[in-house]
Amino acid sequence: MDLLYPNMETFNLDFDKLGGLVPAVIQDAATGRVLMLGFMNQDAFRRTVSSGFATFFSRSRNTLWMKGESSGHRLAVKSIETDCDRDALLLHVEAAGPGVCHEGYQSCFFRRLSDNAWVVSEPQTYNPSDIYGSKP
Amino acid sequence: MDLLYPNMETFNLDFDKLGGLVPAVIQDAATGRVLMLGFMNQDAFRRTVSSGFATFFSRSRNTLWMKGESSGHRLAVKSIETDCDRDALLLHVEAAGPGVCHEGYQSCFFRRLSDNAWVVSEPQTYNPSDIYGSKP
Repeated sequence: MDLLYPNMETFNLDFDKLGGLVPAVIQDAATGRVLMLGFMNQDAFRRTVSSGFATFFSRSRNTLWMKGESSGHRLAVKSIETDCDRDALLLHVEAAGPGVCHEGYQSCFFRRLSDNAWVVSEPQTYNPSDIYGSKP
Repeated sequence: MDLLYPNMETFNLDFDKLGGLVPAVIQDAATGRVLMLGFMNQDAFRRTVSSGFATFFSRSRNTLWMKGESSGHRLAVKSIETDCDRDALLLHVEAAGPGVCHEGYQSCFFRRLSDNAWVVSEPQTYNPSDIYGSKP
């Protein structure tokens, strides 16, 4: 058995409901803050487990991407949970760098509903152009 | 304007990436624990906002369901956030009852990965047959 690619049957996750994907909630292991939500296909899940760093499937680019590949803002996995239907994942992570969001915020969930409008509810923690250059 | 059905254009959420749905992460407002992940279509989101109780779209039953409709385990919404791409939601809730999961656990995420296997990582908080009868 290839240690880098554990047998997916043992995980018994339900990738069929979303056409090969499961949503993966990323939560800061220390603070409990939800940082982002990504999607994993089977390969992304295997790589996450084998590498210890959260890896997603990009629906827009149709490819795997390890979060932090270019920014350095990696997500070191502390634990992984699945839900009753085995069709969603919850990862507790240690997040490197000042923020997970490519728009410069600690969490991608930086807009809060207030009087039926989305309002930015916190300051940026870094300048995205310092990290990503002109194309975030 | 119908107050019960706020104009969705003002929310500007991206329901297209998942065929009319967005994933909604449900987090306990007091403890920070992630309790479940559901999906909302536009109607479910509108009802959640207008009623103050988390309401989802059931993919298996093809219908709206207010969480807790039958069990009483409702999710009172304290705040709603969206992410940078406006294609995911994070709800902070006050959860009524001993558990969110229909299998009798506080959270649907009660299985943790350990040595490449899912292991139940906590005790049940109630007996689901007491709440749901013979058909959970």
